[in-house]
Formats: sequence, C-alpha cells, structure tokens
Amino acid sequence: MVQQNLSADLRKRLVKSVGSCNGEDVKNSVVRRISILNWIGAYQREDLLSDFIAGITLGLTIIPQSLAYAGLAGLPSHYGLYAAYMGSLVYVIFGTVKEVSIGPTSLMALLAVQYTMDKPIQYMIILAFLAGLVELLMGVLKLGFLVSFIPIPVTSAFTSATALIIVGTQLKHLFGIPSKAHGFFQTLYSLTTRIVESNPGDLILGGFAIAFLLGLRQITRIPINDKTPRGKVLKKFLWYLSLSRNALIVLITSAIAFRWNSSGEQVPFKLSGHVQPGIPGFELPIYSVQSGNVTIGYFEVVRELGSSLVLVPLVAVLANVSIAKAFSAGKIVDASQEMIALGLCNLLGSCFSAMPTCGAFTRSAVSHSSGVRTPLAGIYSAIMTLLALSLLTPYFYFIPKTTLAAVLICSVVFMVDFSIVKVLFKASRTDILSWVGCFCVSLFAGVEVGLLFGIFISVIGLLKVWVRPGIQQDSIEKQGHRYVKLSPETGIFFPAVDFLRTKVIEVANEQQVPIVVDCSGVIGLDHTSTKGMKELAGELKKVSQKLILLNLKPSLRKILEESDEEIFNFWEDETDADGDNNNVVRNIG
Amino acid sequence: MVQQNLSADLRKRLVKSVGSCNGEDVKNSVVRRISILNWIGAYQREDLLSDFIAGITLGLTIIPQSLAYAGLAGLPSHYGLYAAYMGSLVYVIFGTVKEVSIGPTSLMALLAVQYTMDKPIQYMIILAFLAGLVELLMGVLKLGFLVSFIPIPVTSAFTSATALIIVGTQLKHLFGIPSKAHGFFQTLYSLTTRIVESNPGDLILGGFAIAFLLGLRQITRIPINDKTPRGKVLKKFLWYLSLSRNALIVLITSAIAFRWNSSGEQVPFKLSGHVQPGIPGFELPIYSVQSGNVTIGYFEVVRELGSSLVLVPLVAVLANVSIAKAFSAGKIVDASQEMIALGLCNLLGSCFSAMPTCGAFTRSAVSHSSGVRTPLAGIYSAIMTLLALSLLTPYFYFIPKTTLAAVLICSVVFMVDFSIVKVLFKASRTDILSWVGCFCVSLFAGVEVGLLFGIFISVIGLLKVWVRPGIQQDSIEKQGHRYVKLSPETGIFFPAVDFLRTKVIEVANEQQVPIVVDCSGVIGLDHTSTKGMKELAGELKKVSQKLILLNLKPSLRKILEESDEEIFNFWEDETDADGDNNNVVRNIG
Repeated sequence: MVQQNLSADLRKRLVKSVGSCNGEDVKNSVVRRISILNWIGAYQREDLLSDFIAGITLGLTIIPQSLAYAGLAGLPSHYGLYAAYMGSLVYVIFGTVKEVSIGPTSLMALLAVQYTMDKPIQYMIILAFLAGLVELLMGVLKLGFLVSFIPIPVTSAFTSATALIIVGTQLKHLFGIPSKAHGFFQTLYSLTTRIVESNPGDLILGGFAIAFLLGLRQITRIPINDKTPRGKVLKKFLWYLSLSRNALIVLITSAIAFRWNSSGEQVPFKLSGHVQPGIPGFELPIYSVQSGNVTIGYFEVVRELGSSLVLVPLVAVLANVSIAKAFSAGKIVDASQEMIALGLCNLLGSCFSAMPTCGAFTRSAVSHSSGVRTPLAGIYSAIMTLLALSLLTPYFYFIPKTTLAAVLICSVVFMVDFSIVKVLFKASRTDILSWVGCFCVSLFAGVEVGLLFGIFISVIGLLKVWVRPGIQQDSIEKQGHRYVKLSPETGIFFPAVDFLRTKVIEVANEQQVPIVVDCSGVIGLDHTSTKGMKELAGELKKVSQKLILLNLKPSLRKILEESDEEIFNFWEDETDADGDNNNVVRNIG
Repeated sequence: MVQQNLSADLRKRLVKSVGSCNGEDVKNSVVRRISILNWIGAYQREDLLSDFIAGITLGLTIIPQSLAYAGLAGLPSHYGLYAAYMGSLVYVIFGTVKEVSIGPTSLMALLAVQYTMDKPIQYMIILAFLAGLVELLMGVLKLGFLVSFIPIPVTSAFTSATALIIVGTQLKHLFGIPSKAHGFFQTLYSLTTRIVESNPGDLILGGFAIAFLLGLRQITRIPINDKTPRGKVLKKFLWYLSLSRNALIVLITSAIAFRWNSSGEQVPFKLSGHVQPGIPGFELPIYSVQSGNVTIGYFEVVRELGSSLVLVPLVAVLANVSIAKAFSAGKIVDASQEMIALGLCNLLGSCFSAMPTCGAFTRSAVSHSSGVRTPLAGIYSAIMTLLALSLLTPYFYFIPKTTLAAVLICSVVFMVDFSIVKVLFKASRTDILSWVGCFCVSLFAGVEVGLLFGIFISVIGLLKVWVRPGIQQDSIEKQGHRYVKLSPETGIFFPAVDFLRTKVIEVANEQQVPIVVDCSGVIGLDHTSTKGMKELAGELKKVSQKLILLNLKPSLRKILEESDEEIFNFWEDETDADGDNNNVVRNIG
C-alpha cells in the first residue's frame, strides 16, 4: 500500500515535471489553439448575415489587390489569388481578431521580391513556407517580443519608402515602358531617359483609372442628409461604390479591352495575358528548384533566401500584431496565437503554391466598416476568390497592366507619410536618425537593408544608455565632512563600468575626499562590472581614498562582498554621513 | 573701424566654429599626438641603461615568437620579423605605456588567418593596412568605447578557445604529420586517424623542446637565498635563462639540425626552409592581387576580408587598451592615443610588408620585469630584429618546425583558463551563456564567429532589460483610497512600452482602482514609448479608470503634456494620494 502510494505520488510528480508533455495537456493546449472552437458555439443567425456581407465586400477588395500584389512580387497573377483564399480560410480556424484579413500585401510582396528577383517562382513558395515556419515558432516559443525591436519611426520610414518604391516601379507600367530596372532611383532614371518611348494607350487608360480610383475614394465625403430613408440608401450605395472601386475599374477596363479585342483590332495597351485557371494541388515546398538547365539544391535555395527568413516573418508578425492591437481597443491581444495563425496561413498556403502573406491594414479597415462579426467572414472572401480562380481566369487575360498599376499606386500612395518627421525632430535624436536612416537606405539599397539599418540605429540608441550613463556629480558637506557624490542614472553593466571607473578616478585625482557612488539606479551587476568595481575600489584603497557605495540593493551588495579583501564601504542612506566619519563609514569585511 | 571690428569678431567666431581646422590648433594637436616629444626631454642616462637591458631581453622573446606567429598566420617566418621591428619602432614614437610591446601575437595571427587562409600573402598585408586605418579612425573619432562591448566572459572564452585551437593546429607539426586540416575538431580528427604517420624525429625533438621550455619556465621558482651576492647573481641568471628559453631552444635545435645537415645525412625532422633575408622596401598596400593566373581587384580583396576589417581592429584595440590599463595602476590611460599608436604601427608596418600586430600581454610582462623605463626600449628590440633579418636568415633555414610548434604551444597553453566558468555560474545567466557560446562556437566555427556570437549574446542580455523590465506591483491603501502602484525598474524605451501597457491593462481589468505608475526609474521616453503611453492613457480613460504617473522627471512630463487631450494625471510624490482623491489627483490640461 505504501509502495502504491509512493508510486502514485511519484507519477504525479513526474507528470508535473514533464509538464505539457502529458497527453491530456497537449490535447488541451492544442484545442485552445484552434480558436474557432472557442466562439463557433455561440454563433448566431444575425452573425451569419453580417459576416456574409463583410466577406463579400472584402472579396471585392482582395481579388483585384491580389492580382496586383502578385505582379509586384514578380509572379503571375494567380499566385496572389492562391494566397488570398488560403490566408482567408486558415485564419477562420486559428484567428482571434475578426477584422484581420490575411492575404497578399504590398509590404510582403516588395520585401520578398528583393530576395527572389529574377529567380524561379518556387523560391517565393519556399520562402512562404519557411517564413510560416518561423512565424509558427515565434508563436510557440513566445518570441513575439522580437517585434518590439521595430520602433514606430522605423515602421513609418519603412512603410513610406515601400510605398514610394512601389509607385516608382508601377510608373513604368503606367507609361507602358518595358523596363527591367529595379530600385527607386534606377526606375526613375530609366523612366526619365526613356519617357519618349511611352505608350499613349497605357498612359491614357492608366490616367483614367487613377482619376476614377481617387474620385471614388472621395465619394463618401459628399455631404448627404442621411436622416431621410432615401438619403440613407444613397449614402450606403456611395459607400459600397467607393469600396468596390478596385473591382469596378478592373471590370470596366477589362471590358474595354475585351471589346477592342473582339473587334479584331490591336488593343492599344498591354494586357495581363494568360492566367492559369484552377487550383494547384498539395505539394510540400521542400524541393530542389530547376532554373534553366541547372538544378539548385534545397539547402542552396535556403541559403540564398538568407536574411529574408528572419525579416519576412518579422515584418509579417509586426503587421498582424499591429492590426490586431488597433482593433482590440483595450483588450489584450493574444500575440502568440496571432503568430501561430499567421504561421499556419503561410505554411499551409505555401503547400498550395501561395506567396507569403500577412494581415493588410486597408482590408482590415474594410472588414471593420462592413460590420464584420467573426473571423467566419473569411469563408465568403475565400469562396469568392475560388470562384474567380475557376470561372473568371479566361477574362483575367484582358485586365490591362496599366489598370493594375493604377490600383497599386492608389492603394499605397496614402501610406507615404512625412508628417511624422516634424514630430520626431522634437522627440529624440535616435528617433529622427532611425527614420532618416531607414528611409534613405530603403530607397538606395532596398527595403530589406533599410529595415535592418533602422533597427540597428534604434538598438544602438538603446545601448548608448548602457555605455555612457548620465552621471550627476555633487559636492556635499555634512557636519564638517566633505564628500563627492556621483549618481549614475542607470545600472552599471559591462559597457559602462570603464566609463564610471574613469569618472571616479578623475574626481579622486582632483579632490582628496571620499567618493560616494549613489547606486539607487543600479539594477544589476555582471561579471565584468563586478570585477571593474573591485579593481576601482582596490586602486582607490592604494591611494588611501575611500569609495562608498550608497543605496546598493542587498542582492547586489552580496555579489560585491564575495570579494576576499575589505575594499568596499557601504552606506544604507546618506544619514550615514553624519557623525564621526570613521565610525559611520562602515567597512564590510 | 566698426567694419574692421566686426570682421575681426566674425573671424574669431569662424575660427571658433571651424575648431581644430585652424592651422595653429592642428599643429598643436598633432604635436601632442607624437608622444615621444612629451618625455624625451627628461630622458636621463640611467633610463638609457635600463631601457637597453629591457629592449635586449624583449628582443630575445620577440624574435622566436615572431617566427612562430608568422607560421601560425600561414606566412613565411620573415613576415613576423617585419611586423616585430616596425611595431617596436613606431610605438617608440607614438606609444604612451612603456611596457607595451607591439608585434605579432597569437590572437592576431589566428584571427587574421581565418580570413586569409589559402590566399596570397598580400591579403594579410592589406588586412594589416586597413585594420591600422580603422584603429587610427577609432582613436581620432574617440570610438574606443566600442571595445567595452566585449565583456570579460567573452574575452576569456575567446582567449581560451584561441589557445586550444593553436595547440590543436601545432600538434600536427609536433607529430610531423603533414595535414591541411583547419579548425579545432578537424585537426584533432585528422591527427587521431593519421597518428601512425607520425614522424619519430619531429616527435622526439618536439617533446624535448616542450620539456625544455616548461622546465625553464619553472626554474625561477627554485628557492635561492638572494641575500648573498652569489645568490643574487644566481637568481638573476636563472631569471634571464628562463626569459630567453624560446631563443635558447631555437638556437639549440637549429644547431643540432645544422650539424646533422653538415654531416651530409638526411635531417630526421622537418626544417623551416628558406627565409628571405633583408628588409622589404616601402609599398603602399593598395593594389590588386595576383593569385595563380587570376588578378583580384583591390575592392574584391577588401570585400573578401569582410568582417575582419572590424573584428581585427576591435580585438587589437581591446588587447592594447587592456595591457595599458593593467600597467597603468590608477592612472587614466589615454585610450585614444593608444589606438592612434596601434593604428600607425599597422599602417606604417603594412607599407613595409608587416602582418597585423597588437600589444602582447606576455611580452609586456617581460618588459615590466626587465625594468623598462620608457618606450625607447623598443629601439633595441627593433635593432635586434633587424640584425636577425640581415645576418641570421641563412641560419633560420635550420630551425626545426617542431621547435616553433613547441614555442607556440608553450606560450599559449597557459592562456586556457576554465576557472572563470565556476565564477560565472554564480554571476549572471548572460555571463555564463556568453562564455559557453563564444567558447563552443569558436571551436566549432572559428574564433571570429565565436567572438561575434559572444558579443551578440552579451548585447542581447543588455537589451533584455529594455524589453522586459522588472515591474514591482503593490496594492496600497491610504486614508480610504485604494490604488495599485506599478514600479518599473528602468526607463521605458520603445521595446518595453508594450510590455508595460499589457501589464497595466491586466491590472486594470482585475481591479477597478486607480493605477499609479512609479516613474522614478524612467530615464527617457522615445517617440514609440510616448505614443504607447498616450494610447494606454486613452484606453484607460475610455473605461473611466485613472492612470497616474508618479515621480516623472519634469523634462519627460513636458513631452507627455504636449498631447492635446487631458489624459494624464501626475503626482509629484505619494503624499498626493492623501486627502480627497478627486482634489489631489491633479489633472494636467
């Protein structure tokens, strides 16, 4: 009986120590991760209608955007649609924020294309797969804090630069100039030198499309008396008209192209060309890639993808978590779950040939204003996208390239935001430096380098505090005893100990009085700083000068006391300075 | 007259604003940098004798070491001697610490060879030149603080790993096994599998050399009564014998080889072979490199040198400044001047075909115990090295390779130090992680990757504090008013603001009381954290909960008050909580 109890107890402890490796626990935590199970039970009929309307509205936005973003990523249009329907479907099951719409985005497309430019399409699919894996890991290992290393100035500069670059690259389609130029300045240069080659057809149609899109964007601002029933309907109609502007312009210009073509004449603007109909089957994206006559091994592909395997997931997670937060309004976002959902969207998506995806701010705003109730809305967008893939692909042939360029330009041009610069000038030097650095490097060397550079500058700004902490110096005289008090503003970790040592020795050389270091702000000591402090105390002892540490936390004091020699003096607080100096400066042995 | 005055004033201001661009200032600051001018005036006859003895002693150490370190760097032996005499000479003029001995070192040799392995010799010279340039810039731009990012655990792990790797690579010479293996484990593996190929001649001579070196190293520990004049002389003799052990073993074994060779028989151990006599002329190392039939452009060479252009100068400066500090004893080291001196040693040295150099701890200790008085001692070591290059090179042919291996092994084996690990285990997790990380990665992937990895872990440890600051939570009740006080231990910069926001919202959801954030530890706010704090205050205001910032510095308070809305409440100190809550919680508008 005793033995039985013992083994039961043992088993309990084992189970405890193994933690979530226990079968039941694993099941529970997996179930908890399938978010749909947490809300589908309470799903009601009115939710259904709201989600249906929101889903259809979203579909009207996501289809033309996906075609354009795929082009931006250097892929045939249908790859954007694959990503759109897979992202929508998977997020229904694992997502937590009803507004979020996962699918192709301009950020992802432009960032990913830096690494996959002029390479076979499979590079993009493999990137989506691995990025998904990294996102999933970030979620499971709770590494979401990594995105907090991208501060707002960097996000802002990165977004503005991305938008500018996209406008730059799309101008060539708008002008109908065939150009292989990459990068902002290169494209602009190639445009200005070859402006005479512009194709009037592309230019006229593109200009019309832009005017149409910008006009419909403003249409909701028309003041309408929505007190009357007619006014209400009109307002709703205009809102819907504005929302479906991308779909409308694609429809209108394709119809023009279709008619022109049917008339047997040469269409005077470039068309998208053949789009693959149907849906690709399942294929795990772990394969070698055929490029011309050369076979590139899987690991070679991974090596070439390089830093994209960190940057693409980082930006995707940042976008998703920001959107989730923007719509959460005071509730706490389960960032881990968002990363897991995003990771699965990309992992599963890439198995069905989808390009890398993340949440899109503009589409999420559409969902929100369409009155979305649950992530189930994604089902309807997915169905619309699938229908487009099966039924509409023959007509996608006729979408003018210049129309897609206009759609892209009009969706990103409002992302350019220079107003923050004025604010940052007033904030800190690191903030403005990281903005300018990220922005300029993005334009000159590509967004991926710019992003890294911006983060680098911000992190340097943080480290500066550890290297050169502010140290306040006060000469104090109390009841005839004089001492100099040095108050470093923050913890003395390894990069700062030498700085402090130099400062103390300087003061000690100038004034032959005890030196009190106020350690109220010292939150930690590492091996290097402990050793540095000991050396300093030893050096001062040699020249018979006292080093007194004031307000040092007991835990840190213990670390210093482990020294063999009696070199440190400690004060609990400054009243220790009163009375007889020799008595009060207690020497800890 | 007025105009004349005005222009004089203008000129003064211009001169002031241009600062050190003024001719006189430039001259002064250049003269100040030529350190020898500051002490040569006070040079005395007894200094001369002391420096002479120290210089000759140093020469006996530096010549055999240079031959060995050049071999370690994959260069013919004479390149070590070029570096030794140029380093010694230039440091005489620009150096500030009399003990420092600049020349080839094991750290530099092993670090540099990672980048120049299997490449033409010119790579090493170009690396020396560019490293010198970077060191000079670090000195002029006062970037010496960069070395404070290498904490002691990383230095220690890096040094131990370097020593182990050197022992590993030298074992093949000791065993006389010709092997092209690089890296610690690869060499060990190749050794164990090919142990039967060992050459008995190399092994016996090498074993003898090691026994000789270790024996003479210990000889000064023999207890001798140095009260008697004979004892004093004996002690001095033993000390000198011990110091010249490297030179002696090279001399003895070369003599054996010379005799063996003269007798017409095959020498049973490998010899160093031909050493170029004489001194190379001046050549600026900015040239393209011929490798076989291929010409490699200068910029391509620079690109291939990659991160070595940062790492080599960083380690060199770290070594120099550490040595300077170790011998400065309570005085402040002019770190900038040390970097400039080191930079010039490498810049000028490389123009005369020297390999990269830095200060060597062991040699500096030799100088110190030889009673060096001024950096002028370097003159005598330089002359000895030059004499060796002009007169002894024919004999260098006979230096057995196994002897140089023994010299190397015996100089580095005591650098292996695992005792620090025990100390670090008691210190912080970051310290032990950075030691283990740097050590293992150095052994597996090379010292340059290991060093970077160690620094990376240490910096992550520093950043951790900014991401997840400790936040203390107290529930306080004062005169019937309840509130929760949250005290973050350090400044809220961008990586932490989200963490704090989540914490505050969690607490606010649990308890419907005002939340007081104690900002005593907050040393700064950037744009991202300002915006985050505003969002947080806004969110709490929506649910009618108060957010009160306690003890916020006036300068930071001003930043927050620039917000348009009245969302923040400030307390100067906690007595503000007394009395009527509504009156006291002053709302700043």
